[in-house]
Amino acid sequence: MKPGILTLTTDFGQHGPYVAALKGTILGLAPSTNIVDVSHTIVPQNVLEGAFVLAGIVDSFPPGTIHLAVVDPGVGTERHLIAACVAGNWFILPDNGLISGVIRNRPLKEVREITNPAIRRREVAPTFHGRDILAPAAAFLLNGGDPSELGPIQERVIRLANFEPRSDDAGGLLGEVIFRDTFGNLVTNIPVDRLPPREEPISIQIASACVEGLSQTYGEQPSGTLVAVIGSTGWLEIAVVNGDAGRQLRVGPGTTVWLRPRK
Amino acid sequence: MKPGILTLTTDFGQHGPYVAALKGTILGLAPSTNIVDVSHTIVPQNVLEGAFVLAGIVDSFPPGTIHLAVVDPGVGTERHLIAACVAGNWFILPDNGLISGVIRNRPLKEVREITNPAIRRREVAPTFHGRDILAPAAAFLLNGGDPSELGPIQERVIRLANFEPRSDDAGGLLGEVIFRDTFGNLVTNIPVDRLPPREEPISIQIASACVEGLSQTYGEQPSGTLVAVIGSTGWLEIAVVNGDAGRQLRVGPGTTVWLRPRK
Amino acid sequence: MKPGILTLTTDFGQHGPYVAALKGTILGLAPSTNIVDVSHTIVPQNVLEGAFVLAGIVDSFPPGTIHLAVVDPGVGTERHLIAACVAGNWFILPDNGLISGVIRNRPLKEVREITNPAIRRREVAPTFHGRDILAPAAAFLLNGGDPSELGPIQERVIRLANFEPRSDDAGGLLGEVIFRDTFGNLVTNIPVDRLPPREEPISIQIASACVEGLSQTYGEQPSGTLVAVIGSTGWLEIAVVNGDAGRQLRVGPGTTVWLRPRK
Repeated sequence: MKPGILTLTTDFGQHGPYVAALKGTILGLAPSTNIVDVSHTIVPQNVLEGAFVLAGIVDSFPPGTIHLAVVDPGVGTERHLIAACVAGNWFILPDNGLISGVIRNRPLKEVREITNPAIRRREVAPTFHGRDILAPAAAFLLNGGDPSELGPIQERVIRLANFEPRSDDAGGLLGEVIFRDTFGNLVTNIPVDRLPPREEPISIQIASACVEGLSQTYGEQPSGTLVAVIGSTGWLEIAVVNGDAGRQLRVGPGTTVWLRPRK
Repeated sequence: MKPGILTLTTDFGQHGPYVAALKGTILGLAPSTNIVDVSHTIVPQNVLEGAFVLAGIVDSFPPGTIHLAVVDPGVGTERHLIAACVAGNWFILPDNGLISGVIRNRPLKEVREITNPAIRRREVAPTFHGRDILAPAAAFLLNGGDPSELGPIQERVIRLANFEPRSDDAGGLLGEVIFRDTFGNLVTNIPVDRLPPREEPISIQIASACVEGLSQTYGEQPSGTLVAVIGSTGWLEIAVVNGDAGRQLRVGPGTTVWLRPRK
Repeated sequence: MKPGILTLTTDFGQHGPYVAALKGTILGLAPSTNIVDVSHTIVPQNVLEGAFVLAGIVDSFPPGTIHLAVVDPGVGTERHLIAACVAGNWFILPDNGLISGVIRNRPLKEVREITNPAIRRREVAPTFHGRDILAPAAAFLLNGGDPSELGPIQERVIRLANFEPRSDDAGGLLGEVIFRDTFGNLVTNIPVDRLPPREEPISIQIASACVEGLSQTYGEQPSGTLVAVIGSTGWLEIAVVNGDAGRQLRVGPGTTVWLRPRK
């Protein structure tokens, strides 16, 4: 059997037994799985950051990849666990908005609520549905199981309101920082497809700073310059050339970003 | 040949060449090995934390898995290196108590001291027995080698005294926090099999706080409530609903936990 | 086809989508690749640390391994991207000194500048050449492609001046700390092959401290002793027995280390 790829995105942290427990469970059920860690250091219970990271990897993996994601503040309560098919890939995750970034510009083909008691660990720990319900569901699909056996069709999924910037009254966009990367670059929720055409001059306000226009890359302006670029995952980023924008502006996720047509 | 699974648990840290040197050595000797990282961020030289993490993953992996663990303050000195067979899996590690959690409720079937000079790197660096002795021993077993060739039978292994809570004089248990997870949950060394029957009311004292009774999961009480739950790895945990117990109580590993029958 | 090994060394950090985007790209192009993470937490844009880590792993991997490394402050500017063959392995990386450690004592057999527009992602993001140019180049080699198709021969590569210690006028060596590991051990740029013969007494000055002679391993002296050892990767290290040399001396990468013959 062709080994399938499974990606993992969680907020479990790197130093405990939890990620490996997930992996062992999967390898016990679907031994030839090629497991790829995306991140296990999503800020604990920060669904928005998880949604951003998931959205940033979809297009890099071949169709047929299965993506398992667990950022699940509601573990053990009434939130749903779902399997969702988007762009030829299945996403196995809690229905709490974690899929928001993936489906903002990709059609959601099918959603199943994961309810089948036969596709789960014999004993389900109320605090670890990732290992005991989601991992077996992922292994079931990796082994070629029929998605309809996971559970009933679910018509709608929860979407995070703040995954999209809002339009202001004057042709501008009000967004926010959703991710600060390891270089201090500030990724916003303003996607390239919401930007005005290239020839229209814009200015971007963030905290007390204002950036005029877009740069092609970090390195084309003098060291220390605050610039705005289209990042590699397709969102607008604020960066400092050879510097750390987050530290320089003293801001991070949640900070408002206001993009306006320049007069 | 069916590729075997090898897990790695170390305190090497993520940012140096040491983990990859271990993996390269293994892949050079046993190319089809499926290597699974458990953790490389065990608190440096904290054998107790390593023992907890190892214990937390054993049951998630299929039988036949080989577990290599290196938390080894005594590297280069007279401590033994051992291969121990427990529940159908081999553990390759220093004999310093690191196996304590695994064998607290599982029989230790066979222990070999790893002494065979033919099963090690040609040059053994006195500071890196993980790469130069333990990795080749693991690769030897992954390739189907006979464990008896690793070295002579060893009758006993070192067990950490503080891996088990002590009974007090009044039907209670005196334990300690052994792990603080990424959410701030405080995992104690009090295992589910040492708890009184479910119907007996208990209270749990930790630092200046007292928790009455056990909850099923983190989310069933109001935000901010301090709760005690049976964690997914089978130990008693102290948590704050949607919060960080470690930060709220200002405690961490080593803190005393006192479980008492409630009057 | 025999699955090849690909190692990854980057400063992307662990918590974003960037490392997984790299991996997905590779697995999409060369599905059976065995990807081994070396480190993704190189200090951002610290080419010297990246060069040290790369140098420390080469000899642990079997010949034929491909090493992809991205620490690339100049991404999107005029620096070259290269494929370099050293000791039977290909290194795919920016030509900014990152290969310095690997080639300090190994012959550089062939260097290609990576220029072929057919071997890259259809759209190249100016901020993510790792995913869009280097990953496809690595996959091309993993699939058995002819290195000459990557681009033209390049005669020279950039070497970091501070990867080698300088000789002083009195038979000593002036070096510096290039890496502080998770235990606080301070790895210097003084390699074992530049040390005087074992029988010649030496002393090592670092910050306000002075170490006399070399120890075999960390554990052979009393707790708290400052010692100098030959580390497992072949460089001189300063360590504190059962302690943290970096914290005790309050120094880290960049600190001068002066090795002198003892009178």
